[in-house]
Amino acid sequence: MFIDDAFAHLYSLSLAGLAVSTPNPNVSAAIYSPDGALIASGFHNRKLSPDHAEVIAIKGAQSLARGATLVVSLEPCAHTGTTPPCTQAIIDAEISKVIYAVSDPNPIAAGGAQVLKSAGIEVEHIHSAELEYVQRAWLHKVQSGKPLMIWKVATTLDAKVAASDSTSQWITGPQSREDVQLLRAQSDAILIGTNTAIVDNPHLIPRGHSARPVRIICGEQDVPASNQVFDKEARTVLVKSKSIPDLMSMLGDEGFNQVLVEAGPTFGSALLASGNIDEIIMYQAPKVLGGGKDFVSNLGISTLDDHLELQLLSVERCGSDIKSHYAVKGL
Amino acid sequence: MFIDDAFAHLYSLSLAGLAVSTPNPNVSAAIYSPDGALIASGFHNRKLSPDHAEVIAIKGAQSLARGATLVVSLEPCAHTGTTPPCTQAIIDAEISKVIYAVSDPNPIAAGGAQVLKSAGIEVEHIHSAELEYVQRAWLHKVQSGKPLMIWKVATTLDAKVAASDSTSQWITGPQSREDVQLLRAQSDAILIGTNTAIVDNPHLIPRGHSARPVRIICGEQDVPASNQVFDKEARTVLVKSKSIPDLMSMLGDEGFNQVLVEAGPTFGSALLASGNIDEIIMYQAPKVLGGGKDFVSNLGISTLDDHLELQLLSVERCGSDIKSHYAVKGL
Repeated sequence: MFIDDAFAHLYSLSLAGLAVSTPNPNVSAAIYSPDGALIASGFHNRKLSPDHAEVIAIKGAQSLARGATLVVSLEPCAHTGTTPPCTQAIIDAEISKVIYAVSDPNPIAAGGAQVLKSAGIEVEHIHSAELEYVQRAWLHKVQSGKPLMIWKVATTLDAKVAASDSTSQWITGPQSREDVQLLRAQSDAILIGTNTAIVDNPHLIPRGHSARPVRIICGEQDVPASNQVFDKEARTVLVKSKSIPDLMSMLGDEGFNQVLVEAGPTFGSALLASGNIDEIIMYQAPKVLGGGKDFVSNLGISTLDDHLELQLLSVERCGSDIKSHYAVKGL
Repeated sequence: MFIDDAFAHLYSLSLAGLAVSTPNPNVSAAIYSPDGALIASGFHNRKLSPDHAEVIAIKGAQSLARGATLVVSLEPCAHTGTTPPCTQAIIDAEISKVIYAVSDPNPIAAGGAQVLKSAGIEVEHIHSAELEYVQRAWLHKVQSGKPLMIWKVATTLDAKVAASDSTSQWITGPQSREDVQLLRAQSDAILIGTNTAIVDNPHLIPRGHSARPVRIICGEQDVPASNQVFDKEARTVLVKSKSIPDLMSMLGDEGFNQVLVEAGPTFGSALLASGNIDEIIMYQAPKVLGGGKDFVSNLGISTLDDHLELQLLSVERCGSDIKSHYAVKGL
């Protein structure tokens, strides 16, 4: 079916667009001729150009855009920001039909579908769960004012992140560690606590990727200036505070769509308990310790009925490990 | 391909034959005409008949067995036990060709392939990992003298089997609990410790299945005679001892192929530490407690390098939970 193929194409473009559209939405667009042939497509990459996805596709299609169909992952904006509204570019290009997958919940930019209809363009809204999923970080930010916070955890089968003597490298296998590099590259920022910075001295730069997410270290302990995290490879922000509201407000002000939390059990659990972890991605190695440090520390839950509820989004093998992905539904 | 289809058919028969062949191997067999059509098939069900799988298939094929091909999951036995050797039945039926998937490691019954060849029958050994897998409990028993011990664990994402106030019902969802019923039905015996018997008062009868595995309770505590586990629905064996060697020797004497261990952390960990857990099946619910009882207790491991190594055999969604299956490789 035409729309399935078009949405699959947009999904792969959107994956490539993760983290490079921030603070704007991660949008992809494609233009098809009346007989269904792909003319041009693109995604918003703010690191390369201010052009939105629709404009990139229209520029690629040139005069072939006239009478063509534009398929786009998000409702086109009707708002003048860094660039003029996409609706005007669509009208000017004489596109005949627009199909969009997700409605724009942003009150400043929404209403694009109506603007296009008023200009005589046929507009269709066909929802796609996949295209909503790949835009979920920005959608979450627009709705909550806070970035999507994903806590990445690597544990043994018995959920330990370190043995009782504190040894913790390497719990998971090479394929899981590679996967984490991609996760970093798809995030706008990576957050750790001062304790992790001091104990592990991580670099946090995604190996094998050109992306350079902002590194954020939060906490009251002094982190030596010689630590790797302070090198010049990416911007590093030190938040010398234990206040989670202050941290979240800073992250909101920065405009990040997605923050990857690579905190240890204490800081990660504090974020989880405060309702600021939206998703958990767990890499679980086929190892048993029978003791050591739990990935999550005391949440004040003493009886099973009071458990923190998650929703399993996906599970797959990752080399010799299991990768599972959860949405946090709350206490 | 003929052999792939034949092996797939044998695999499904072998699944149905789990636990009903004990103490004999779980064997399935099928007879095909020279043009590859299925004539007859069956699996060894000792609860219904002493006939081995080969004999069931031969009886089903009657005179059509003459000149036909027998495909069988295990090398046919050359040994007179409860029944005469299968090799003789195959020779008498004038089968022309035998294809078997797994060699018989049992010194008493092995050598069947050679006997058949000497009788002028064409014999081919085509190995199948799937058909070896479904017979692994009996193969393990023949090689080690002990049943295959599978520890079934149901935990939260943070590997807890109970909250700090000891509440533990229900951690996993309805689909995982259904799956456990099948696992019980495929096992010859179900083993728990006296503590689980006293605290949980489980019935251990597989709901929705006709199988009635033996219930074994091991430990020194007194279990009330009124407990469900002592009802007449299945045989129940009380092993009033904390000696794991004594327990394993009893299980070996019973001739069980597969024992499902549904013990709690203390007894389960003792079996694991003593090298008597061969596989772990874990049902992990999308719940977080942040404290409570770990599924595995202290194994005396203090540093990561000394971890107990497992091998991930399979992972799948089970309703809202994750089911993962591991082979224990050892400390």
